[in-house]
Amino acid sequence: MNFNPSRDFARQLDTQDELASFRSQFVITNPDLIYLDGNSLGRLPKAAAERVSAAVAEWGSDLIRGWNKRWWDSPTRVGEKIARLVGAGPGQVIVSDSTSVNLYKTVMAAMALHPQRGRIVTDALNFPSDLYVLQGVIRQLSPSTLHGKSRAWGRHQIVRIESQDGDVSPDLDALASAVDENTSLVTLSHVTFKSGYLYEMAAITEMAHRKGALVLWDLCHSVGALPIQLDRCNADFAIGCTYKYLNGGPGSPAFLYVHRDLQEQALSPIWGWWGQKSPFAFDLDYTPAPGIKRFLAGSQPILSMLALEAALDPLLEAGMDRIRCKSVLLTEYLIYLADTLLAPLGFTLGSPRTPDRRGSHVSIRHPEGYRINRALIDEMNVIPDFREPDNIRLGLAPLYTTFGEVWESMDRMRRVVEDRRFEKYPKERLTVT
Amino acid sequence: MNFNPSRDFARQLDTQDELASFRSQFVITNPDLIYLDGNSLGRLPKAAAERVSAAVAEWGSDLIRGWNKRWWDSPTRVGEKIARLVGAGPGQVIVSDSTSVNLYKTVMAAMALHPQRGRIVTDALNFPSDLYVLQGVIRQLSPSTLHGKSRAWGRHQIVRIESQDGDVSPDLDALASAVDENTSLVTLSHVTFKSGYLYEMAAITEMAHRKGALVLWDLCHSVGALPIQLDRCNADFAIGCTYKYLNGGPGSPAFLYVHRDLQEQALSPIWGWWGQKSPFAFDLDYTPAPGIKRFLAGSQPILSMLALEAALDPLLEAGMDRIRCKSVLLTEYLIYLADTLLAPLGFTLGSPRTPDRRGSHVSIRHPEGYRINRALIDEMNVIPDFREPDNIRLGLAPLYTTFGEVWESMDRMRRVVEDRRFEKYPKERLTVT
Repeated sequence: MNFNPSRDFARQLDTQDELASFRSQFVITNPDLIYLDGNSLGRLPKAAAERVSAAVAEWGSDLIRGWNKRWWDSPTRVGEKIARLVGAGPGQVIVSDSTSVNLYKTVMAAMALHPQRGRIVTDALNFPSDLYVLQGVIRQLSPSTLHGKSRAWGRHQIVRIESQDGDVSPDLDALASAVDENTSLVTLSHVTFKSGYLYEMAAITEMAHRKGALVLWDLCHSVGALPIQLDRCNADFAIGCTYKYLNGGPGSPAFLYVHRDLQEQALSPIWGWWGQKSPFAFDLDYTPAPGIKRFLAGSQPILSMLALEAALDPLLEAGMDRIRCKSVLLTEYLIYLADTLLAPLGFTLGSPRTPDRRGSHVSIRHPEGYRINRALIDEMNVIPDFREPDNIRLGLAPLYTTFGEVWESMDRMRRVVEDRRFEKYPKERLTVT
Repeated sequence: MNFNPSRDFARQLDTQDELASFRSQFVITNPDLIYLDGNSLGRLPKAAAERVSAAVAEWGSDLIRGWNKRWWDSPTRVGEKIARLVGAGPGQVIVSDSTSVNLYKTVMAAMALHPQRGRIVTDALNFPSDLYVLQGVIRQLSPSTLHGKSRAWGRHQIVRIESQDGDVSPDLDALASAVDENTSLVTLSHVTFKSGYLYEMAAITEMAHRKGALVLWDLCHSVGALPIQLDRCNADFAIGCTYKYLNGGPGSPAFLYVHRDLQEQALSPIWGWWGQKSPFAFDLDYTPAPGIKRFLAGSQPILSMLALEAALDPLLEAGMDRIRCKSVLLTEYLIYLADTLLAPLGFTLGSPRTPDRRGSHVSIRHPEGYRINRALIDEMNVIPDFREPDNIRLGLAPLYTTFGEVWESMDRMRRVVEDRRFEKYPKERLTVT
């Protein structure tokens, strides 16, 4: 595509955008605010707001009967909707708990499937919380910490592949070499949280399977942003959050996928009544439910769950192929403008240049990134987010981000730097709480 | 108290009820419906409905900034509100995840604190899901299942005390004998889910501590129904749900308590960024947060969380002593009416007679309990619930249950049996799918 840097060109791209009408399905209270953090918390879909309101009314009038009407089967029902977005056939996806808890459940299940192996391979581009979960699992499987005998479990270890290019892309050769006959599990973020690097799911999964390892994909930054084919790639496990491109709302419950072929052997470490074969028989002994339900434990937050259920409809209606198509155009256009308008001001690209290897957010780096990000939020009505040490992350959500917003945000960023507006902010990081 | 069985007497009790005005703080769409299942799902507080509505609006307009404003610290902020209901000093309660997940986290933490011991003591009156969680933990700690070597971990076992009197009360002597020098943990439901038996928390905790065991209380059926003194009883851990007497809404997030003295050594098995010392530093290695926050893992469902936050206010305003006082009067009155009106029709009491040993729900047993329960719901506008094999469970929530409703429900139950209305229902159990 031949872009040009004029504002008119952005207008033209918006006129040609076949997904443009989806923006009206979202609540937009301030049209001048350019929201580029839908990769952290998606905008509020009008349908979600209505569904929450209805759910509260159901609580008031149906009371306990609400569970039988629409609530009890929501973890599988909403799971099936997500399944359509991630290329999973029926009976393999449930919605429950947080991403971290789901990662824990699936990693523990994977490790138990390979009791003779002990290595987990991941990379330094992975979301740190994922690394923490893995570290907790290793600590637990190693009796040196729990029990005082380290020898038996000495083979348990995490191999974390370091990036060669300043945290933009993984070192694929190092990754392939690290996967050996002692590897239980390879687990990676499908799209990395900082640079937006997109792993080739089919190739990596196949490589790991050749060594007999299982593969678990974290889909947080890819689900809802691009087509995913879990079944076709033969992924073993996947997890993901629902509050980014799925627009489920703050802290909406996460999902997990377990490949059909593994469901009979795989067990969640957390046994609860929702994962029991007959939860209302109240047997005193646990018998896992057949299929994916055994990965449920306790009750799910229904108001947040039903907001998510409604939020998924616009994505299903638009279709992941059209969403990806616009996403690539948005990120290509943003990178073109950054190269043209911002590179002369000291900005560099912190994301892959090839669209094939990139998700739907772009990192733009600048030594003053932290203060520029603050100025954008406080003075320029642009909301990106910042990730250490110098990344301004710009999330482009095809259902509501316009090309005009991309142009405008690049222009405002240019003004922040040209006018030195960032200089009044302290360099010390603000911390939450 | 000298009760009498007339409807007028019920009216008189309502007139004298100092908590009567709290009923108006709840949404009641059908005044003829007698809701006696607040011990499963509490009624909708008006303040919770308003708060959810405001939270949805915050999502729409604050977008990601909502996290810094009111969302990020909600697990501890709402935790501190619950702390005031359970006799816990600051910094010991958080709201997160489901009850089952919290039980798993705290049981695993407790087991790791006692690596030389291996026995968990519980009872058959415990909620089955709690037993499932324990079974999962034992399976995991025993390498016979994970690793093929059973000897080293052979001491891991669950001792489940059976009830001597048809699941009404525990066998306290058997319980005391089961706690030995190999016991890591004693875990019990403070109020049992079926009979409503209320354990003496201080005495049991002290008994277990004498043997060097830790104690974990499940407060699901006691929190919000009666005063609890976790600190004063020296409880080590506690967990509980928030959708029963706390009125947090369907599947609202659960809470957990870790005694201050244990917080430095105790670790959650699920390591996530919310439990990391500096979550936004994105270090690649996990360092547990100081204090109770280390028991957090991932993001919490904010809509459900904020509904809960608002729902707690009426409880705090009424005060647990007044709530308990009315609760005892309600259950005493119900038992009096059951003895007077229902015993001649074949009903027996499935709950302790002494109010000191009883929570805020009462089980009434009848061989036709299942069908009577169905007739009450389908024809008589009374909602109790049923627990196998023959328990009709009647939950009395002091903030909104009236004495008039107790009288009326007993009268409707009498009519169901006298008129044989239950006979048209099949004996086969309906199951929730």
